[in-house]
Amino acid sequence: MDIAPGFRYARQVQFAETDMAGIVHFSVFFRYMEEAEHALWRAAGLTIARPGETTGWPRVATTFDFKAPLRFQDEFVVEVRLGLATRRTLLYEFTLLRDDKVIGAGTVTTAFVSKLPGEPMKALDLPSDVVRRLRDACT
Amino acid sequence: MDIAPGFRYARQVQFAETDMAGIVHFSVFFRYMEEAEHALWRAAGLTIARPGETTGWPRVATTFDFKAPLRFQDEFVVEVRLGLATRRTLLYEFTLLRDDKVIGAGTVTTAFVSKLPGEPMKALDLPSDVVRRLRDACT
Amino acid sequence: MDIAPGFRYARQVQFAETDMAGIVHFSVFFRYMEEAEHALWRAAGLTIARPGETTGWPRVATTFDFKAPLRFQDEFVVEVRLGLATRRTLLYEFTLLRDDKVIGAGTVTTAFVSKLPGEPMKALDLPSDVVRRLRDACT
Amino acid sequence: MDIAPGFRYARQVQFAETDMAGIVHFSVFFRYMEEAEHALWRAAGLTIARPGETTGWPRVATTFDFKAPLRFQDEFVVEVRLGLATRRTLLYEFTLLRDDKVIGAGTVTTAFVSKLPGEPMKALDLPSDVVRRLRDACT
Repeated sequence: MDIAPGFRYARQVQFAETDMAGIVHFSVFFRYMEEAEHALWRAAGLTIARPGETTGWPRVATTFDFKAPLRFQDEFVVEVRLGLATRRTLLYEFTLLRDDKVIGAGTVTTAFVSKLPGEPMKALDLPSDVVRRLRDACT
Repeated sequence: MDIAPGFRYARQVQFAETDMAGIVHFSVFFRYMEEAEHALWRAAGLTIARPGETTGWPRVATTFDFKAPLRFQDEFVVEVRLGLATRRTLLYEFTLLRDDKVIGAGTVTTAFVSKLPGEPMKALDLPSDVVRRLRDACT
Repeated sequence: MDIAPGFRYARQVQFAETDMAGIVHFSVFFRYMEEAEHALWRAAGLTIARPGETTGWPRVATTFDFKAPLRFQDEFVVEVRLGLATRRTLLYEFTLLRDDKVIGAGTVTTAFVSKLPGEPMKALDLPSDVVRRLRDACT
Repeated sequence: MDIAPGFRYARQVQFAETDMAGIVHFSVFFRYMEEAEHALWRAAGLTIARPGETTGWPRVATTFDFKAPLRFQDEFVVEVRLGLATRRTLLYEFTLLRDDKVIGAGTVTTAFVSKLPGEPMKALDLPSDVVRRLRDACT
């Protein structure tokens, strides 16, 4: 079975991303996934956040499994694929690779919400054109 | 059924932890979980990392489910409980609360490894006295 | 000559603040200064930022001189003093101490601005009551 | 008078680098300067840090003057120039530009030290070949 290659985002580890154990701090992998997500949005001709907007895409759940460490100046790729989209949530799946070695894999589940000043966030139906354009940009 | 209250770590949201959406960035919750873990280690009379050490506790997997946002200066508590310990992995379970409201819940699975310079990390059996002391400090 | 002790903010180094050199990353000291500044605002009964506000306190200039490193779990104090206030800028002066050892010293110069959506920030005269209350809270 | 253009490092603002004021947090500019410094080292065929090394380049002093804010997805350039090198300190000078607009300018003064486990850092004379290669890569 073939797996679509997904959208690819290339990155190099920066010094400030390492910790005293000499490897990239585990919280930084969530930044890597998000950077790749936003690069995908740009590739789809979209932008995920604008100043003063009254809607947004907050995270509902996220996971990461660590297979091998990354170190200062390592070059790696984040592969992004779109997983299941329900009426109100969208799943992104990520794989981090250094050369052909899998560094780890993670997921981010997002919702689409209205956020009016002084009111709690309220879940909205996903805009189907956005999901379609992201899916197109992944392949 | 009673649930042990776990170890509690109190914290306040700092400005630099917010993002342009006006809420704490989702990657920061992994720092909050780790801060609570390390406070638990100190409460157990232990320290998780020392300069030049040849063993360490890298993360194997981590998850977080987001229920409500945190904002600048919000005061919250991280509750830590020890979950399953296998021969080579230890699970921490975390709940974040602002007053009585659940902000989110997450897990961190760690391993115990040797890390000699120039060699890949190698999994070791968990030191049972460390696990016991952490469990005692949780209750 | 006596120097006023200033406002004191106590803190402990977190693991994620260290880098592969085994010490706190130099950029983190700017977060420490800001945390102490905001603690001073709270001690003065003020809050420096609220959601949706149309004014703000952006940084105009900042400096830090490093005297000694901080390491994981080090406990330290940030002393804050108010320096020169001009019509449109306010200077904070910071000293970081671990026990009696000076870790470093820095400054932050802030302005007070209006920030309306879609318009550039515009400098305003400092609110004199805010400056007075901060000065009182420093002594 | 002509000013050498310096080494140029291009970057785009990431979401996690913004704060609730909608702009890049001021502490992040120190990461931008460091990223540009390390890119200069790579351009000079050098690397500033290796695992287990017993020498290092800690920061002695740093400054930044903020002229205009950066926002999510802004593309900007960091220009790096080598300033004064004394026997034991090296000065980098940075200018951040978005298109032709100056966003800000800063400096980083570094020292070269030995750092043996369990001993305090000790200043060493700068390796002159490193300084020469960095200067060559700047022009």
